[in-house]
Amino acid sequence: MDPTACLERTRLLIDRCLDRLLPKEEEPPATLHRAMRYSVLAGGKRLRPALALAGAELGSEPIETLAPAAAALELIHTYSLIHDDLPAMDDDGLRRGKPTCHVVFGEAHAILAGDALLTLAFEVLAREPQGERFVPRRLEAVRRVAKAAGPAGMVGGQTADLEAARLPAAADRVAALEFVHRHKTGALLGASVALGAVLGGLSRSEVDRLERFGQKVGLAFQIADDVLDVEGSDETLGKTAGKDQKDHKLTYPALLGVEASRREAKRQLEEALGELEPFGAKAQVLRELGAFAIERRS
Amino acid sequence: MDPTACLERTRLLIDRCLDRLLPKEEEPPATLHRAMRYSVLAGGKRLRPALALAGAELGSEPIETLAPAAAALELIHTYSLIHDDLPAMDDDGLRRGKPTCHVVFGEAHAILAGDALLTLAFEVLAREPQGERFVPRRLEAVRRVAKAAGPAGMVGGQTADLEAARLPAAADRVAALEFVHRHKTGALLGASVALGAVLGGLSRSEVDRLERFGQKVGLAFQIADDVLDVEGSDETLGKTAGKDQKDHKLTYPALLGVEASRREAKRQLEEALGELEPFGAKAQVLRELGAFAIERRS
Repeated sequence: MDPTACLERTRLLIDRCLDRLLPKEEEPPATLHRAMRYSVLAGGKRLRPALALAGAELGSEPIETLAPAAAALELIHTYSLIHDDLPAMDDDGLRRGKPTCHVVFGEAHAILAGDALLTLAFEVLAREPQGERFVPRRLEAVRRVAKAAGPAGMVGGQTADLEAARLPAAADRVAALEFVHRHKTGALLGASVALGAVLGGLSRSEVDRLERFGQKVGLAFQIADDVLDVEGSDETLGKTAGKDQKDHKLTYPALLGVEASRREAKRQLEEALGELEPFGAKAQVLRELGAFAIERRS
Repeated sequence: MDPTACLERTRLLIDRCLDRLLPKEEEPPATLHRAMRYSVLAGGKRLRPALALAGAELGSEPIETLAPAAAALELIHTYSLIHDDLPAMDDDGLRRGKPTCHVVFGEAHAILAGDALLTLAFEVLAREPQGERFVPRRLEAVRRVAKAAGPAGMVGGQTADLEAARLPAAADRVAALEFVHRHKTGALLGASVALGAVLGGLSRSEVDRLERFGQKVGLAFQIADDVLDVEGSDETLGKTAGKDQKDHKLTYPALLGVEASRREAKRQLEEALGELEPFGAKAQVLRELGAFAIERRS
């Protein structure tokens, strides 16, 4: 299937799940629920759920059954965006083409909305998909996602990002930036594919291989994102363009130049695709999603 | 056993677990790991793990096996303290007798340390205690703790707390305050006892009953805490005394007076103790912990 059509189909399915999973606006505390819904339902490609469902297609379970668990990845991704955009962090006012959560609801509610989304995600992962045979798979999904989102993964990457720009030596900076991208983006993308594969009933070694595919796609994606930040406009990005440069953040283009960064993204993508070889034609959707994610960004 | 001795024994066991579960200070990103360790290892009574282990004693598993999972509750409790103390929230500079996380490490690192602790807790709960027979119990523990910590529990309570003081009518304010305390404190205390009971192998209805015990102890505890805030000093509290009043926060003493608040805490405790009746003498440690938590605070 064409990756745009695949993403669109996933998006509709996942957005329906998210609407059901999120607390209703009219229930107390209403402001918390409004802030959660505002940020989650602000749009986005739903790339992480799409990767999860594409991973699940290599297994033997109906995709619709796994959709709520895949949607939980988007709760975690949105929490990370809300917290990263806070004034104390990247201080960004625009996200997915809309004012950020703290701009609309204030800092306190943005912090709490992020906390609530992260916690809700684990409640969903502990519950979905229902059924006895999923019990050990759900537990394995919680374990992998928590590891990828926590201090050894995404939160560790965001912390390193805050600190990387202060490093004096250029060689240290390239290594630091790779650490940032691997942890901040690669870990959760890897866990997303792994989540689908675990719930779909694949073997441990297959899940590990698919997780590595996702991690490498994540690194390629983030390098391509850095390039886009240099070249894009607010409109195509849905967030403030050129902000990395203005904030003196480390980026691949700043360290290696635009052309070398493009080559590095491509090299990482090829490594990622190598992980899919044993799956043959069945992994075609994953291949196309991986390539699409990077091409759209470089 | 005397509750002080019981708490002390638990504290030593749990502090050893926490030291092992937390990432090492020398590993990158070091600042994140230092901030996490600083706040978690700053002291505290470890009441939630103690309640979990006392709940587990009604079951049939060795307590030491369950200690890492019980310690995960303290990671969640500490995350909530770090975020509650942030300038955008309660803006408090003193906690457990020490400068708060954001005072020492800055706001960005405090937000991230909280995020990391919450996520790490779920990774620990998905992993501990090890062994095949614990697989469904671990999953049930994740589900109950996530529900109690999320928007339908602790985060919901903290949000309602930010908003309650703005309510005009006195009757609304009493109802709002009860909502705050039930969600902000009661939910996680209930889940703490339930966690121990689930992992200890108790039946569903026993776990539910013990969860209600913990929820009611939590409400009583929080009312007693409000009283202590009016009457205590910085030294006995380990946090800024009289701060609720200064911040015009809703408290039981402000709404009902000190004596009526004491009576209400006692009434809630008696309701809590009623839940323990079917367990007879075996629940003596839980009884004493419940009474101790409230007495020390009123």
